[in-house]
Amino acid sequence: MTERNRFDPAAFTPQHFLWDYDQGVATITLNIPERKNPLTFDSYAELRDTFRDLVYVDAVKAVVITGAGGNFCSGGDVHDIIGPLTRMDMRELLAFTRMTGDLVKAMRLCPQPILSAIDGVCVGAGAIIAMASDMRYGTENAKVGFLFTRVGLAGCDMGACAILPRIIGQGRAADLLYTGRIMGGDEGERWGFFNRLCSPESVLAETRTLALKLLEGPTFAHGITKTMLHQEWNMSIDQAIEAEAQAQAICMQTADFERAYNAFVNKEKPQFGGN
Amino acid sequence: MTERNRFDPAAFTPQHFLWDYDQGVATITLNIPERKNPLTFDSYAELRDTFRDLVYVDAVKAVVITGAGGNFCSGGDVHDIIGPLTRMDMRELLAFTRMTGDLVKAMRLCPQPILSAIDGVCVGAGAIIAMASDMRYGTENAKVGFLFTRVGLAGCDMGACAILPRIIGQGRAADLLYTGRIMGGDEGERWGFFNRLCSPESVLAETRTLALKLLEGPTFAHGITKTMLHQEWNMSIDQAIEAEAQAQAICMQTADFERAYNAFVNKEKPQFGGN
Amino acid sequence: MTERNRFDPAAFTPQHFLWDYDQGVATITLNIPERKNPLTFDSYAELRDTFRDLVYVDAVKAVVITGAGGNFCSGGDVHDIIGPLTRMDMRELLAFTRMTGDLVKAMRLCPQPILSAIDGVCVGAGAIIAMASDMRYGTENAKVGFLFTRVGLAGCDMGACAILPRIIGQGRAADLLYTGRIMGGDEGERWGFFNRLCSPESVLAETRTLALKLLEGPTFAHGITKTMLHQEWNMSIDQAIEAEAQAQAICMQTADFERAYNAFVNKEKPQFGGN
Repeated sequence: MTERNRFDPAAFTPQHFLWDYDQGVATITLNIPERKNPLTFDSYAELRDTFRDLVYVDAVKAVVITGAGGNFCSGGDVHDIIGPLTRMDMRELLAFTRMTGDLVKAMRLCPQPILSAIDGVCVGAGAIIAMASDMRYGTENAKVGFLFTRVGLAGCDMGACAILPRIIGQGRAADLLYTGRIMGGDEGERWGFFNRLCSPESVLAETRTLALKLLEGPTFAHGITKTMLHQEWNMSIDQAIEAEAQAQAICMQTADFERAYNAFVNKEKPQFGGN
Repeated sequence: MTERNRFDPAAFTPQHFLWDYDQGVATITLNIPERKNPLTFDSYAELRDTFRDLVYVDAVKAVVITGAGGNFCSGGDVHDIIGPLTRMDMRELLAFTRMTGDLVKAMRLCPQPILSAIDGVCVGAGAIIAMASDMRYGTENAKVGFLFTRVGLAGCDMGACAILPRIIGQGRAADLLYTGRIMGGDEGERWGFFNRLCSPESVLAETRTLALKLLEGPTFAHGITKTMLHQEWNMSIDQAIEAEAQAQAICMQTADFERAYNAFVNKEKPQFGGN
Repeated sequence: MTERNRFDPAAFTPQHFLWDYDQGVATITLNIPERKNPLTFDSYAELRDTFRDLVYVDAVKAVVITGAGGNFCSGGDVHDIIGPLTRMDMRELLAFTRMTGDLVKAMRLCPQPILSAIDGVCVGAGAIIAMASDMRYGTENAKVGFLFTRVGLAGCDMGACAILPRIIGQGRAADLLYTGRIMGGDEGERWGFFNRLCSPESVLAETRTLALKLLEGPTFAHGITKTMLHQEWNMSIDQAIEAEAQAQAICMQTADFERAYNAFVNKEKPQFGGN
């Protein structure tokens, strides 16, 4: 695949966020801590392009997203984004909302599981990035807000009216999307938004540990799991079962499947190769 | 829009339920307290027509539904509805089930958020009205029962097999729909059916406070949120993201969006106008 | 219907699991306790055929599934199934994954509610059988694992990526499906996977009591409830409401509906007949 993509995760130096690559795990750190890590037009686009590139980057097996300085992300920057939007025409507005939506699509369409480590403020587009991740570790100090209504907009931003209800239920999602109120860490764990609550000191480390644990598994198969969670979203049960019959048959022809069987027979722990 | 609809919320005097209109909030009170507020053929039809009319009534920004005398609703009246149904032919039965289903459709298709304040008995069609609301405040004394099986019918009434699983999960919904058993207030809050538990004395007041809080927000955008929660129900993620890109671009051309930005710049609280 | 199917529940003697038929309840016991009740090619096929036959067996009104010896099911047998799969070509693999998927389809398409009584190990295809049941009673010792990743496969097995998220939420399902980790009894109850936790001594008896309780209800209507939970899976809300209008109108022409009305008028408990 390297012919088709020159993205080198060890050399990648994005302009609008920090990038760390280590042992197959890429860590993206939103890094404007003095303003709680807002998104800008440029960081939206660079994030979108990065997740699009990752489709072809075998060396990255999982992605961790976090924020610098004790907060995750404060959403679209008021001065960089909100101000200009108030002066755009419809063609420009739609180009913007499609661009932000394309970030979520890119996050769901790359094969790597995406794990968010969330402390402090996680609002607006930041809450969307958390929601669009595969798993979320948080802290008791997490403040998650789909606060689009507070800036005069609807709760339907970047897929929130479709995705959030599937994570926390339709009634609880309605509460957050209509009111824009903050969901705290405990509440988020109780509702299934957070997979685990950690201490602020450990949340990033525990999220990276989860990423490394996934890397010990069959990473090609993990990509198929992610693909099928996406594909089956609005299939009938019968359609989903046939789709999984095909997808799992593909995985049964991988060397990882044979490795697991041989390891079991030999009473060893399987060493997966991602193929 | 007033040319197209002569519905005057301040003058509306329904025949089969109480109607209160105050500060943009319409409160519907089911009011046959001696029988725990059953529905009749007439009240079904009048509720359906009212929610259909509300599509064109800008002066109503949110709807609260409650019941008189410490109960929410005891469902379809046994003497007024169940008895006659046992003597109808299929054409008449289908006309009835479509009419009741049209009430739920009308509740989901009007732009106003619908908030139910639920104390005491909330069963049968009453549980459906609660389920079809956008948010639900309850009490520890709430008794929610999808008890269709107790009258010899299936759990699939007015959309329950589609909507209830999305609120509380497929397994818990199966329990309630097959057995017809009562879900209490604590259980309902734990499962995400109730957004909050209140005291019996305060549940209506707290629900109205929530309605007024929504009115302080961008009410046009709230209507779009409601529309998109409905539209995206069975879309793919990619379709939902495109649908939200268009819907949010519409909201970005509202004055409310600009008001919010200007208020932020001026360090003020935004005063939304619903346009 | 007896002309079309010679399946006699009182005389049925399956080869690969235990079968008990009593008072309208069929109990299936997976019974290779020394290996925690694994599935084999033969037991998969016989389970699939049994649930397909049950579509035409009026005498069976509910099905209970359990495992012998304190465990539910250890999934596909490593020696009987996993080994041969590693040597199959794609045509044979797809035939296998379709056969296992057909078991889930058959469980969802028969009209009888399926109730699983789950103690101890419940992993792999065993977790799928639990997931594909209508309701699940468990114990504190239940160990539920969608551990396909541990054998080098994807989490998308027999409908898991479609069904599990609707039971416990998308984020929690991702956790179980990517990591293959064990969900315990308490966690499973909190997340809505288990409808109730029982003691190991009582879990089967309580599950059978639930089955008998369903038998006291309108069993034809229960079959319609099950059909509609399946049919409406990916319908729009409006489509689901119309589908339920038709389905409930059918139920309103049953004798059970009239029996319930008459019993109410006479202040008696209804005696349903399943027709």
